[in-house]
Amino acid sequence: MGKIFHLVSLKHLLLVSIALNVSLILRVINISEKKILHSSSALVSKNNLHLSSSSSLTSFANARIEAQDGEERVINLDHGDPTMYEKYWQQEGDKTTIVIPGWQSLSYFSDVSNICWFLEPEFAKEVVRLHKVVGNAIAENRHIVVGTGSTQLFQAALYALSPQDALEPISVVSAAPYYSSYPSITDCLKSGLYKWAGDAHSFKKEGPYIELVTSPNNPDGFVRQSVVNRSEGILVHDLAYYWPQYTSISFPADHDLMLFTVSKSTGHAGMRIGWAIVKDTEVAKKMTKYIELNTIGVSKDSQLRAAKVLKVVSNSCESSSSEGENFFEFSHNQLATRWELLRLAVQKSGQFSVPEFAPQFCTFLSRDFKPQPAFAWLKCEQEEVNDCESFLRSKKMLTRSGKHFGFSPKYVRISMLDRDQNYNLFVERLSNIISS
Amino acid sequence: MGKIFHLVSLKHLLLVSIALNVSLILRVINISEKKILHSSSALVSKNNLHLSSSSSLTSFANARIEAQDGEERVINLDHGDPTMYEKYWQQEGDKTTIVIPGWQSLSYFSDVSNICWFLEPEFAKEVVRLHKVVGNAIAENRHIVVGTGSTQLFQAALYALSPQDALEPISVVSAAPYYSSYPSITDCLKSGLYKWAGDAHSFKKEGPYIELVTSPNNPDGFVRQSVVNRSEGILVHDLAYYWPQYTSISFPADHDLMLFTVSKSTGHAGMRIGWAIVKDTEVAKKMTKYIELNTIGVSKDSQLRAAKVLKVVSNSCESSSSEGENFFEFSHNQLATRWELLRLAVQKSGQFSVPEFAPQFCTFLSRDFKPQPAFAWLKCEQEEVNDCESFLRSKKMLTRSGKHFGFSPKYVRISMLDRDQNYNLFVERLSNIISS
Repeated sequence: MGKIFHLVSLKHLLLVSIALNVSLILRVINISEKKILHSSSALVSKNNLHLSSSSSLTSFANARIEAQDGEERVINLDHGDPTMYEKYWQQEGDKTTIVIPGWQSLSYFSDVSNICWFLEPEFAKEVVRLHKVVGNAIAENRHIVVGTGSTQLFQAALYALSPQDALEPISVVSAAPYYSSYPSITDCLKSGLYKWAGDAHSFKKEGPYIELVTSPNNPDGFVRQSVVNRSEGILVHDLAYYWPQYTSISFPADHDLMLFTVSKSTGHAGMRIGWAIVKDTEVAKKMTKYIELNTIGVSKDSQLRAAKVLKVVSNSCESSSSEGENFFEFSHNQLATRWELLRLAVQKSGQFSVPEFAPQFCTFLSRDFKPQPAFAWLKCEQEEVNDCESFLRSKKMLTRSGKHFGFSPKYVRISMLDRDQNYNLFVERLSNIISS
Repeated sequence: MGKIFHLVSLKHLLLVSIALNVSLILRVINISEKKILHSSSALVSKNNLHLSSSSSLTSFANARIEAQDGEERVINLDHGDPTMYEKYWQQEGDKTTIVIPGWQSLSYFSDVSNICWFLEPEFAKEVVRLHKVVGNAIAENRHIVVGTGSTQLFQAALYALSPQDALEPISVVSAAPYYSSYPSITDCLKSGLYKWAGDAHSFKKEGPYIELVTSPNNPDGFVRQSVVNRSEGILVHDLAYYWPQYTSISFPADHDLMLFTVSKSTGHAGMRIGWAIVKDTEVAKKMTKYIELNTIGVSKDSQLRAAKVLKVVSNSCESSSSEGENFFEFSHNQLATRWELLRLAVQKSGQFSVPEFAPQFCTFLSRDFKPQPAFAWLKCEQEEVNDCESFLRSKKMLTRSGKHFGFSPKYVRISMLDRDQNYNLFVERLSNIISS
């Protein structure tokens, strides 16, 4: 992850040039329209720039950033809002349009014959089908538990896997850098059932524990396995990013408890739909019980919509010509371009580094490629910069500090999934940060 | 609530007779179709009747009740599944149909200028409008927080109102009989922030506490006020049933924190949408934070659908002829008939009692009427029956025992909101339980 000073090829220069031109044109349009205020970006006055680190969605939303003429736009890439995917779904037109009549889905129940009684059968069917099409997980003959996003399922898993009558809460660990929300979600209610115990690398306590294995990892994109490896460990595999636009699919995962979400697979974060694939019947029952207590089930409207979206994705993979562009090819290519642009900007600037990955064969796309994660784990390489997040904030780019991930503040996490306009502006701005 | 042995008027006899005939016709249809298995009812074999009390949705769903020919159908009125409302929404046809294109609502964010950044502005607008139309709560110039049902908002309220650094969890109380899920929701994670402390009538502990005031009350339908009344008390008003189909609207409620839900107002339980009306800005912020941690917001699809449904309800109230039948008139009349049938069945049987209510003037319907709650709080008056729930189960009617509500097992809670077919069969069966 050291500095990279290679000669930039003509092709690469052309790419950067095109990207920067696109950004400039977009900026001109932007200024002339005075205030195009996207929900995931904002114009701020200089006075607003002492905002505290926006490590949470609420603090970002509450910043109440105001548009002002002539000021440079703040680019918010702190959170992983997957608006990049809008383009694909717009292009596909009416294929995923859903019509819900007013008398539909009044009941709490979806399928009383299923352990997860609030699971829409159509959604379950499309989950199983998509995993089979992509080959990233075994979902047949497993329990599917639907959740209000995988965040709720993570909590359902903690509830289901924690001993109910233990003298002290079970330890919950994950290898740093870990997903920044794990500690706050785990500890927000000061549960007597489970407790955040930090970095799995330094976890030494005897007895049972829950280890969260996020693979590919959020924030750094590396493929992961458990690190504690003791007999009393219970594993939860968060596979939100195990899709071919982000990483090579090397085998169908078949762990005891795996979490997925539409937010990161198809980009529909506003649906709040996730699913767990669970081997053990008692665990599936307890997870269902948690979701019953927490929200009495999961929006049927969003489940039905998600079923349709997953169906269109599977169709797009199975028949390339008649069913529109392969969703994963499209989004894979978008991310490939973005990562290329980012690496070039990092090279041009000379002030930063991003992870280097080894290529691996993808059984779905039938070719080798390097991971191109949903987040860039960027390091400020300048010796005098200890707080990379503050440094980038001074350049009007909001990112999430490494300290929230149990790691060094020399690092930040940057969303790669924002709309083109913001992403291109970010790459341009980053490339212009040159040593003074 | 003693036994009632009045002379039955001709009009009443006619009503009972019609109801019983309808039930019989429906049963004949049912048997001839062999197995119409509604999601909220079930046919069970005799062997399945030793099911444990289905005090939770999961246990009901997991019972895996099988259809068998020639057996008497089990009627499940244990939970408050509001399928009664399907009829109205079917009658209104396409008015509330919603169309959602595939590229809509991808972002996590709905309105970054709002404290509750995941609140759809259209939904907020219709909430405020409906409360103004009905006159049951002040929602203007208040914070609206949307939740995945009011169940999630109840937990958000506990999180927001509990001191974060107290030495021990704050006590949470409610006057018995209280909503059966309050204790299990409060204590499911053994939170260090709050703890269930039982019946508010017998709460004597010094110091701060949270009192849940459910009005009209679930299970018994009575209008309520706080009972502890100490200076350190914080009140949460659960007003899920404060709508004119259930009770007279006597004033616009204006408490610090009020909870509502579409499940009980319009019948759309499958949407999982509730809302809180909150006076204090810090409380609204903390509730929003809880929902961010718990589920990163609330389904946009369901919020948009709920907005449309609330809009149609308001329209139906404001212009009676062109905009279809007034929703509340319709559902009020349905419940009036159901309560009349229930009271007649109770009279005919002579083995039970239900609460007696005083009529009150309703500012919305501009007339006096008695409460007609969403649940019947039925008492087994037979001396030899101590467990009313078991007794009714032996008659193939599933209800929820009073013991789950912090009360006597001589009582059960019975849903009044099921489909006509089930409700009529239940009334018929109840009326036929005669002293031997």
